[in-house]
Amino acid sequence: MKQRQNPKQPWLLTPGPINTSEMVKQAMLQDWGSWDGDFRAMTKAMCEQLVSYVDDNGEFVCVPVQGSGTFAVEATLGTLIPQQGKALVLINGAYGQRMTKILDYMGRDYVILDKGDYEPPRGEEVAAMLQQDKDISHVLLVHCETSSGILNPVAEIADVVEQQGRRLIIDSMSAFGAIDIRSSDFRFDAIVSSANKCFEGVPGFGFALLRKEALQQSATNAHSLSMDLYDQWCYLEKTGQWRFTPPTHTVAAFTQALKEHQAEGGVVGRFARYSRNQKRLVTGMRQLGFQTLLADEWLSPIIVTFFSPGHENFSFEQFYDRLKARNYIIYPGKLTQAESFRLGCIGQLFDEQIDGLLGAMAAVLDEMQIPDGCPNH
Amino acid sequence: MKQRQNPKQPWLLTPGPINTSEMVKQAMLQDWGSWDGDFRAMTKAMCEQLVSYVDDNGEFVCVPVQGSGTFAVEATLGTLIPQQGKALVLINGAYGQRMTKILDYMGRDYVILDKGDYEPPRGEEVAAMLQQDKDISHVLLVHCETSSGILNPVAEIADVVEQQGRRLIIDSMSAFGAIDIRSSDFRFDAIVSSANKCFEGVPGFGFALLRKEALQQSATNAHSLSMDLYDQWCYLEKTGQWRFTPPTHTVAAFTQALKEHQAEGGVVGRFARYSRNQKRLVTGMRQLGFQTLLADEWLSPIIVTFFSPGHENFSFEQFYDRLKARNYIIYPGKLTQAESFRLGCIGQLFDEQIDGLLGAMAAVLDEMQIPDGCPNH
Repeated sequence: MKQRQNPKQPWLLTPGPINTSEMVKQAMLQDWGSWDGDFRAMTKAMCEQLVSYVDDNGEFVCVPVQGSGTFAVEATLGTLIPQQGKALVLINGAYGQRMTKILDYMGRDYVILDKGDYEPPRGEEVAAMLQQDKDISHVLLVHCETSSGILNPVAEIADVVEQQGRRLIIDSMSAFGAIDIRSSDFRFDAIVSSANKCFEGVPGFGFALLRKEALQQSATNAHSLSMDLYDQWCYLEKTGQWRFTPPTHTVAAFTQALKEHQAEGGVVGRFARYSRNQKRLVTGMRQLGFQTLLADEWLSPIIVTFFSPGHENFSFEQFYDRLKARNYIIYPGKLTQAESFRLGCIGQLFDEQIDGLLGAMAAVLDEMQIPDGCPNH
Repeated sequence: MKQRQNPKQPWLLTPGPINTSEMVKQAMLQDWGSWDGDFRAMTKAMCEQLVSYVDDNGEFVCVPVQGSGTFAVEATLGTLIPQQGKALVLINGAYGQRMTKILDYMGRDYVILDKGDYEPPRGEEVAAMLQQDKDISHVLLVHCETSSGILNPVAEIADVVEQQGRRLIIDSMSAFGAIDIRSSDFRFDAIVSSANKCFEGVPGFGFALLRKEALQQSATNAHSLSMDLYDQWCYLEKTGQWRFTPPTHTVAAFTQALKEHQAEGGVVGRFARYSRNQKRLVTGMRQLGFQTLLADEWLSPIIVTFFSPGHENFSFEQFYDRLKARNYIIYPGKLTQAESFRLGCIGQLFDEQIDGLLGAMAAVLDEMQIPDGCPNH
């Protein structure tokens, strides 16, 4: 690890924005003309490389879109699902729920399979719903639901969706780049992700990897000019440019982030580091008496939900502030049933930071007079 | 002027993204947790300061939105114009036309006043259309139409719209921050702009300054979750957070850019420098034989359209590449009738860069064997 330019900046144990490398940030020290050929070449290289992560057969294209990951999800749903289409939304947390909200705005028909806070949707349940309702054209799945941190069984669901002749859209916001997902392994029409998750860029745009054949049929679907990925794709093909001003510095940072992703061994290398972070974190946290929400088989190497200590001295605000005073930023929980918090494993985090966090945790529990091994809930 | 970190990066004579200061770029060398209190405080301060540029009476709020300026325009139109509303779109270039495209996507009714490539819409024409069509609820105006570089007569039009009891939405993308526009001078419901224009931040988000009373009536208008400024505003008020991941580094850069804007004397100071750039540029270009599209009274201090030389040796691609080889990036024209190019006056440009560009222009004309004073068209 390189020396940090600003050693006081906090370590982010969050699902993103995450800690980026010094080189990624330094790539933002240049201004770019968005119309200029140099920037167009950078966009082209970025899109080609992103496609190469999922597709070996020339069946997919990459369409970037300005804004947060939700913008990219909305753009993908708006572009791919026709006005007469019908979606089955698989829900086990906030990001599945958000997709239904997007569909409500767009006036698209949908049904849901809601598994509550953290149970995974399973292939046989999806199969039953698809058999029963022939109008369902698209199935929407969150790959890693960061509300709980669960890694949903994407291959199992993709197989069922393909068998039933429907189309699958995967929100892989917080997993793509660290969890392998290839079109040769199972069938899908779209993967959506963003710059500031497992590729370790800075926030400012998202992107969709889209099956060209599906995109070509989507000319008149979109509900919004800014969100129309078909229109964006045509313009990119024709001019090499984003339709509207791109976040140039963010794209430059992402280009550097992609280089570092390759240097770390691509998806395999990143998966290995994040998995190591997660195991070290979960082991250490359990030694401090914390319990994970999920059983080991469903834990993702992205983010982990822990129950808050049941002790009367515990308050999340105090816990957060005391950890922050030690330079660690954690993330609040999102469960409806139990008090919890979350710790991310992604970004520029290594053994040193995980151990540092665990040491800070122990000290903070001590300060707050919460005994180790206190029952969590 | 400070030393440039990377002296090879080009000077951008464009309408944005523009050259930012070294300090603005260096503000991006830190990662921020978007949920954290420090970032929330930064968002709050930014919004309050932006409001202070237009409003002394607590009547306006600032709502930021991720993405390019067009995203912010679409979000504002989608949020403020009810489904049963009707817009009058004043058009004299690409950005007016784009607003009709946005309305087409949203299925909102509208009529247009199209003045062609560069004629300004005038108050009396607008008055006549409003008198004739009582269904028009909103008038949409582009403040500085960067297609031609014209500064449209916003006060004149605002007065007419107010007299007729309609509502005015101003796309002040490329003017706000350099052209004074205050709610005490004339009435409007919204001004839309973005981070990477006259405030000299980097691209990644836009913002709308909205009359609170109009926004409060807009709860159910929006056609898109990502574009719903009412929902974004409520969430900001309740939590201090952006609804979806903000472009944290871009916001940090903008915070620094606002400081530098203040230090330069705010809108007055920036207007003075850009006006000086424009006069120096236009004078020098005219000395080289170039002609401006517009008469002096309509020239903005933002961007100026010049006719391309009529000489047979002229090709825009060659002209562009030769100027770029000298480190100056210019901008293509957007006229339907005549060959042209555009030069921006905004961003970190001072006498030195204007003179440098003029010198490069002279050398390039010489290389291309195009005589000075060659008739332009």
